Amino acid sequence: LKKIAVALPETDPQSLDAESIMPRFAIALHGGAGKILRSGFGPEREAEYCAALGKALSAGHDILSKDGSSMDAVIAAVQLLEECPLFNAGIGAAFTHAGTHELDASVMDGATLNAGAVAAVSNVKSPIALARMVMEQSAYVMMQSKGAEEFAAAQGLEIVKPDYFHTEHRLRQLRLLQESGDDAYLLEYPQDEKLGTVGVVALDTDGNLAAGTSTGGTTNKQWGRVGDTPIIGAGTYASNQSCAVSSTGTGEHFIRATVARNISAMMEYAGLSLDEATERAIMDQLTGIGGEGGVVAVDKDGNIALRFNTAGMYRGAWAEGGEPFVGMFGDQEQ
Amino acid sequence: LKKIAVALPETDPQSLDAESIMPRFAIALHGGAGKILRSGFGPEREAEYCAALGKALSAGHDILSKDGSSMDAVIAAVQLLEECPLFNAGIGAAFTHAGTHELDASVMDGATLNAGAVAAVSNVKSPIALARMVMEQSAYVMMQSKGAEEFAAAQGLEIVKPDYFHTEHRLRQLRLLQESGDDAYLLEYPQDEKLGTVGVVALDTDGNLAAGTSTGGTTNKQWGRVGDTPIIGAGTYASNQSCAVSSTGTGEHFIRATVARNISAMMEYAGLSLDEATERAIMDQLTGIGGEGGVVAVDKDGNIALRFNTAGMYRGAWAEGGEPFVGMFGDQEQ
Repeated sequence: LKKIAVALPETDPQSLDAESIMPRFAIALHGGAGKILRSGFGPEREAEYCAALGKALSAGHDILSKDGSSMDAVIAAVQLLEECPLFNAGIGAAFTHAGTHELDASVMDGATLNAGAVAAVSNVKSPIALARMVMEQSAYVMMQSKGAEEFAAAQGLEIVKPDYFHTEHRLRQLRLLQESGDDAYLLEYPQDEKLGTVGVVALDTDGNLAAGTSTGGTTNKQWGRVGDTPIIGAGTYASNQSCAVSSTGTGEHFIRATVARNISAMMEYAGLSLDEATERAIMDQLTGIGGEGGVVAVDKDGNIALRFNTAGMYRGAWAEGGEPFVGMFGDQEQ
Repeated sequence: LKKIAVALPETDPQSLDAESIMPRFAIALHGGAGKILRSGFGPEREAEYCAALGKALSAGHDILSKDGSSMDAVIAAVQLLEECPLFNAGIGAAFTHAGTHELDASVMDGATLNAGAVAAVSNVKSPIALARMVMEQSAYVMMQSKGAEEFAAAQGLEIVKPDYFHTEHRLRQLRLLQESGDDAYLLEYPQDEKLGTVGVVALDTDGNLAAGTSTGGTTNKQWGRVGDTPIIGAGTYASNQSCAVSSTGTGEHFIRATVARNISAMMEYAGLSLDEATERAIMDQLTGIGGEGGVVAVDKDGNIALRFNTAGMYRGAWAEGGEPFVGMFGDQEQ
């Protein structure tokens, strides 16, 4: 018997026993990490974010509770977050320096170590669906730019006009950033406001883990910048030997620290728990090179970790037999 | 005192003592792995390959022996391999399905965990130089396609016409493959003939490790396919805590197995030697998911590993105080 989530430490053995069940399925998700402070949100706006997170969480939980696959749950939940303008993925994606959108996404299947990833697609409605299609319908793992868009069209995925992703608040963020000085984005690391990603991890009743991540990238990005979201081992990783991980934050640091694979490696090779591995990866290693952000992760025993070194992270978690949790701020505990 | 290279096992303690020195610097490189059999090469052609490998090896060794940096040694050696039409990188790059070239490259600095990567560039003379420039002159780690090319031009890197990379033998490989059936490339995994990469790893006298990898990708690739070469943690990884690794082979499998980061993780977390870690990563894990290829790696103590599960790998190694080694076939030992 295992405890449902990592957020139940320091309890005495009796209460642990009482609360413990072995979840056969579990899901966790994020909608980005950053300077997310209670002072910046009224109760209505907080409720709006929590409702969106809860809707995606429920959709994934529903699939898992009916013995659906972790991959189906991940895709369904990510797509709801892509379609929600609050998060930087799909509708609501960040604008590039040129005022366009270049979207990235990836998925990984922990049972087979199969993976799919796309970088810099502009007209594919659901980048996460395309990433899955790359995994399942091609001999490749990663495609980029025009080629990836041609593949999407050839496979019959829904193609949209670029303004499908347009939102006024993201355009305002671009304008603000560009007014602050044309070169600022080069010298300073992207500020919290510019960051964002959505990601989901899940364990299904067959014991299979899956992870998926989708993003609009950083506001004002140029030169075809690619972050950690489509990089297997950085933004996304899943192995039935250990855990499934989805990352969000300053993508360059997540690539350099190979955050997602590193968490699983510390479990596999150093015998760390999911809780310990995510703690070390985010609070020690990522922080040590100046990175900011977090991960959501679920391991093969249904333990969940929601770990970040930023003020807040839009997040949710729900394991079989437990209560759904959604939160945004640093002081909210599952 | 350590032995120079992993290829000196099973010697008795006395001979080990006699041969052992602690190299302060070391370099290893590859020019691709695959169905490289002695029966396919006459002595002249073998000599031609070995001369090209030796030239790149010497260039890197020269820099290291004068206390130059491992990154400078990696770039210099990779550039010589890029400029050599025998290898699938730079001149001699594979052709895409559309008859074009899309080149990928990446570098990583083990001292800082800084990294740079580019995917799908068509007109930049030295993709490895561009990868280094992304690392050193931008806030990004990875750029792709047109954006990466604009960055290269803005930084004053040498831009070439696409036919700079053209070679008749690669075009012939494309034609042969396309004649074998238009859909064959989708269903079958790319054959050995279509594969290739160049990569270099080095340790310098300051104790810093570096790795770099450059490729033309797979012959007949389409849809903007990206392999493992520009993926930090798959094709390239370096950390002064453990080792530097450059991969070559069936890139999709190398991404899924996060080969380069995995080797370093097994050293860091499981206490494996470089020899053991490369053995497990290639012969066990990569082979286990159907992948083919190899790695060159050097660790912080100057040990070198040249590991592959294919018939052969174009390769070379040279540690301080030792003799230079170049080889192609499976039966050649350092």
